[in-house]
Amino acid sequence: MTTLRQLGEFGLIRQIQRQLRSRHIGDDCAVLPDGLLITCDPVIENIHYLPHTPPRQIGHKAMARNLSDIAAMAGQPTYAVVSLALRPTTTARWVHELYAGMTHIAGQFGCRIVGGDTAHVRHEQTITITLLGQAKRPILRTGAKPGHLIYVTGKLGGSFQSGKHLTFTPKIRQAQWLAKHCRPSAMLDISDGLANDLQRLAEASQVGLEIESHKIPKIGTLHAALTDGEDFELLFTIPAKLAAKLPRTYRPIGQVVRTPGIRLDGQPLHLHGYDHFQKRR
Amino acid sequence: MTTLRQLGEFGLIRQIQRQLRSRHIGDDCAVLPDGLLITCDPVIENIHYLPHTPPRQIGHKAMARNLSDIAAMAGQPTYAVVSLALRPTTTARWVHELYAGMTHIAGQFGCRIVGGDTAHVRHEQTITITLLGQAKRPILRTGAKPGHLIYVTGKLGGSFQSGKHLTFTPKIRQAQWLAKHCRPSAMLDISDGLANDLQRLAEASQVGLEIESHKIPKIGTLHAALTDGEDFELLFTIPAKLAAKLPRTYRPIGQVVRTPGIRLDGQPLHLHGYDHFQKRR
Repeated sequence: MTTLRQLGEFGLIRQIQRQLRSRHIGDDCAVLPDGLLITCDPVIENIHYLPHTPPRQIGHKAMARNLSDIAAMAGQPTYAVVSLALRPTTTARWVHELYAGMTHIAGQFGCRIVGGDTAHVRHEQTITITLLGQAKRPILRTGAKPGHLIYVTGKLGGSFQSGKHLTFTPKIRQAQWLAKHCRPSAMLDISDGLANDLQRLAEASQVGLEIESHKIPKIGTLHAALTDGEDFELLFTIPAKLAAKLPRTYRPIGQVVRTPGIRLDGQPLHLHGYDHFQKRR
Repeated sequence: MTTLRQLGEFGLIRQIQRQLRSRHIGDDCAVLPDGLLITCDPVIENIHYLPHTPPRQIGHKAMARNLSDIAAMAGQPTYAVVSLALRPTTTARWVHELYAGMTHIAGQFGCRIVGGDTAHVRHEQTITITLLGQAKRPILRTGAKPGHLIYVTGKLGGSFQSGKHLTFTPKIRQAQWLAKHCRPSAMLDISDGLANDLQRLAEASQVGLEIESHKIPKIGTLHAALTDGEDFELLFTIPAKLAAKLPRTYRPIGQVVRTPGIRLDGQPLHLHGYDHFQKRR
């Protein structure tokens, strides 16, 4: 019997796609009729936060992760529902602070919590948020074409050490600006390390990607920028002729090519980012 | 510091309602503009199912619980997203069977799974489904008026012992029939025992309820019918003059009155159903 550890997160998602006969599953949000977007993401104790993490920051992260998925489609977040699995020994104050963190960041983007559910657990506490959004013309992962340039919105790596993963602002406004002025051909958020998300982009668009390592904006080492998770920056591609419209702070990190695979400085990239089932943080 | 065990599930939901300044939170679904409904509900190992429960039944239950919340608003389910928190030792086959259970029951009501997320846990596995639906005129919990009659859609109690909680069919069609022909003034699904859900109905509609014990359709004892959880029948009220339109199989279990509180055979009802934080199944 194949276990999820053997199959890995990528393999599991492919199995689910096949079973549901849906190649749309796997983008940051599902796109429904009339430009309705829906996404859900859990935040789990000891994986996404630690027992001593302040609950206001946990709430912020839980909501911001989902807002980042709406950003990745260049959408506008609208409504959220919150499913809480908590231990009975958790305090009412902790839950109040959790909601304070969620509502503060959601409110900055005009998004409201409208419902949810509570249940108890014995071990890991989990906060699962489902977010709705709207996008007239959502940006998928599938539109990158040979010749397009590849960009990221900010510095990568070290999100856990720096605490950025608990305090980041999702790139909603940047994504909406990009959609309006440069119309990216593909976009996704960098949640499991650049190496993984380059892989996802290449597979979804059925192209190859050539990256130059010295052009990757990074906080720590190149290895950290490629493999650390939870950056929540955006990775996007645009046709070369639209590149002039980007602010000067954006520099391409590489370009889309016809030949499949990811190459870093001309060599095949063998590094992988975070996989939920194959290793632990 | 007040813990959730001291506060209880009712108390926690009230705290969240106050914090979000929303009295709408607490119905089976949140009602959004244009009749869009959204609901989410987790199914947690060792609470909602046991480690040896067949995964196809777990998938059925996880989806059917959410479909039941759409039924409670007389809505039509449309799309689902699925958040999985699984141990790495879980098999690919188990996940395949889980999805088979989810898609089978969802498909019977024209509902499609369009996305989701996967993450790993060390202990309790959790399946959290968020469901969207549509209802032109959703039925809330708030419309019961003195003089209206009180009904349930089927027999109550013993859902865990009989296995009904893993195999029940959500009352979508019955709810749509009722909405069309009798227009219930209030409706909710019975998920935590009739005693709890009578309490929720009375509070939401700001009325009292008088119940006759011998009229409650039940599988086992009266105590089981009042306090066992997971029946997933519907509890609804209709104006007396519309009662003639109901099929003969429906008999009222009591009536709505002005005086607050729940009375069973004339005596105040002190029994409680299932509370997530105050006791364990």
